[in-house]
Amino acid sequence: MESTPARTSTRLDSFVDRYAARTSGMTASEIRALFAVASRPEVVSLAGGMPNISGLPLDVVGDAIGNLVAEHGAVAMQYGSGQGVPFLREQITDVMRLEGIEAHPDDVVVTVGSQQAVDLVTRIFCDPGDVVICEAPSYVGALGVFRAYQADVVHAEMDAQGLVPEALEQAIASCKRAGRKIKFLYTIPNFHNPAGVTLSAERRTRIIEICRREGVLVLEDNPYGLLGFDEAPMRAMRADDPDNVIYLGSFSKTFAPGFRVGWALCPPPVREKMVLAQESATLCPPQFSQMAVSAYLSNHDWQGQIKQFREMYRERRDAMISSLADLMPAGTHWNVPDGGFYVWLTLPDGVDAKAMLPRAVTARVAYVPGTAFFADGFGSRSMRLSFCYPTPERIREGVRRLAGVVEAELELRTMFGATISAPGLSTGYDNPSVDLS
Amino acid sequence: MESTPARTSTRLDSFVDRYAARTSGMTASEIRALFAVASRPEVVSLAGGMPNISGLPLDVVGDAIGNLVAEHGAVAMQYGSGQGVPFLREQITDVMRLEGIEAHPDDVVVTVGSQQAVDLVTRIFCDPGDVVICEAPSYVGALGVFRAYQADVVHAEMDAQGLVPEALEQAIASCKRAGRKIKFLYTIPNFHNPAGVTLSAERRTRIIEICRREGVLVLEDNPYGLLGFDEAPMRAMRADDPDNVIYLGSFSKTFAPGFRVGWALCPPPVREKMVLAQESATLCPPQFSQMAVSAYLSNHDWQGQIKQFREMYRERRDAMISSLADLMPAGTHWNVPDGGFYVWLTLPDGVDAKAMLPRAVTARVAYVPGTAFFADGFGSRSMRLSFCYPTPERIREGVRRLAGVVEAELELRTMFGATISAPGLSTGYDNPSVDLS
Repeated sequence: MESTPARTSTRLDSFVDRYAARTSGMTASEIRALFAVASRPEVVSLAGGMPNISGLPLDVVGDAIGNLVAEHGAVAMQYGSGQGVPFLREQITDVMRLEGIEAHPDDVVVTVGSQQAVDLVTRIFCDPGDVVICEAPSYVGALGVFRAYQADVVHAEMDAQGLVPEALEQAIASCKRAGRKIKFLYTIPNFHNPAGVTLSAERRTRIIEICRREGVLVLEDNPYGLLGFDEAPMRAMRADDPDNVIYLGSFSKTFAPGFRVGWALCPPPVREKMVLAQESATLCPPQFSQMAVSAYLSNHDWQGQIKQFREMYRERRDAMISSLADLMPAGTHWNVPDGGFYVWLTLPDGVDAKAMLPRAVTARVAYVPGTAFFADGFGSRSMRLSFCYPTPERIREGVRRLAGVVEAELELRTMFGATISAPGLSTGYDNPSVDLS
Repeated sequence: MESTPARTSTRLDSFVDRYAARTSGMTASEIRALFAVASRPEVVSLAGGMPNISGLPLDVVGDAIGNLVAEHGAVAMQYGSGQGVPFLREQITDVMRLEGIEAHPDDVVVTVGSQQAVDLVTRIFCDPGDVVICEAPSYVGALGVFRAYQADVVHAEMDAQGLVPEALEQAIASCKRAGRKIKFLYTIPNFHNPAGVTLSAERRTRIIEICRREGVLVLEDNPYGLLGFDEAPMRAMRADDPDNVIYLGSFSKTFAPGFRVGWALCPPPVREKMVLAQESATLCPPQFSQMAVSAYLSNHDWQGQIKQFREMYRERRDAMISSLADLMPAGTHWNVPDGGFYVWLTLPDGVDAKAMLPRAVTARVAYVPGTAFFADGFGSRSMRLSFCYPTPERIREGVRRLAGVVEAELELRTMFGATISAPGLSTGYDNPSVDLS
């Protein structure tokens, strides 16, 4: 490389008066601000949600992609359909069949990771001021999309069985009384990010009924559904209501995120809009990525690979749960997830997870404060702990460091009195600490 | 594959009252509607803008990507930075140096093709009702993005030297008098899509001055800049105004589109917003695609490859121009592009390119009617002819068929009197047939 010139501009933003209104809602997430720190090797990061893909057979993947270039390179490197590669869409219907979904490949739209599917669905449905109902807490990346489209998030309470149907009904009724337009319910039924809980089968039926009755579309985001530790995959909500559920899937956790291949399964009229939105956004999703994923699915025992992933993540879940039980001070609560990547932990009364974070990082452990997962300031006593990426030994070390930080906070509290949690706004649920354990 | 079930829904769109206002602007482009027909093998398609990548060395690409998986697979298949792979961003500054741009890799944001860069810039800047000034005609894919964000396009006239500075000044003045907010000028200075013309050096200076004086940001879209047939690349507008120009580049035409790797080079405050917008849209652009492009650039004489592409496209340009000169009836005009993919052709007075299209397809030749490239109904006598994809022999055959169709139209006109062109709306330029020859 030749030398690079000095940066070209000043720190003043001469465009500040020219941005769109939506741009004021684009701010760095709390997770993002953490990345620079948490990626230092001496820090045990329980913050990020990166899958551990070290178990992937690089020789198999390399051969499959090498053959792809040699045999289909001219197609794989060319523009493709805005909807995605037809054969991959067929394979995607095979993947979804594991969750009880019978779907036609014509109704699948491939996206640049399921993140882009959230973006495109929101683009199609949400005007500024429209309401999206989300679980409390909810996925930080989806909250960012809703904010970027100037939609308002109304949270509905969860408990250990997932989204509470009565809380959903109350949220809908409250919005309708206020004359607000609800565009959809955004829900992560399996191994919730960040809450770790799974929506029970009985509640799935009730929530589908409620949404259908109330004219609220369901956006079922399911990146973790095949990563359950014990039982067969749960039946998807989409399986029981094809006309009112948009289902989002992803290969990021069951294969690898670097290809950015996710998808949306949509009712046909919505699918048509999604394809137009995708063409406007990217012309077409990356053809090479799609054909690489397709070749992997064709040439490898991908279900066996998922089984290996499940066993690895279960071992890490066990390491985290046993460490928490051994090491965390009394008054700390957490749940035991049956799959996925995350544990939701609530600190003893009076300890603020966000305020504590700098001290945790000093102690070389990182997490995501609970407030990142709420649109309204709740979650101050909670945090998300990820067990997906570090080894079991590192997880235990991270929990040991975290426990030390929490104990120091409790000692301070005993000496100087309770700190004050952020009050938050009332949104129909009552528990600012959001204890899902 | 197992058998697929029947499609799940009816033709009625039960969501019709629930879409966002922007969604009503999402309609299939005229190009898109053509694809199904034009892709039949018996049709000579002069419609699409697919690069011809058959000259790429599949062995070199295959080896580079095979090594990528073997040596860096765990990184290439993982999540990456929202801004894009750092080493690729350094390589991108090398590419841009060919056009006189001195840039820092920190100011480059990788996008999912430069289409996504247009989308993200528009997302950041445009509220509904804001104005984007575009050349007349302009790239259909960009017009679709502006429509999807409910921005209003105001066209400014071009001639054989590209965008006319006085027309730009008039368009700006007219918008300002009407109290409208102009967010940026969208311009394709090199080998324009669809017009084929190139903005002269003298005009670049003037347009930069006008935009700076008037407080109008410049969005310089440059997918074809390295594909000139005769001379060295023109100096980019960004090279002379780093603070008021956002430059968009792409590997789709100089390497291959299937990886969907483009970029935006932005003033630092805009770059920060672009990264946030990219994270919201996709979390990160595909890491694997980016590292594949990076490996290609590192392992291959990519400039030599571009030279080969240029020679191939020049031969096809020559085939199209000589065929047009030999075969088209009097009264037809076209320009001779110095690079890129496109010729802009204007039919004899009274012949409507859009109305003629079904008869052309029946005669087994396809093109894109000029109206696709205007936001306001102009261009009815014009069409875009692409010489990038068919062989010279097929190009000549396509022009022969097209000339026959035009002659038949002229005979009909002689027998029955002139057809009436669509009148269009006045937007500050005077020529509904847009003859750029």
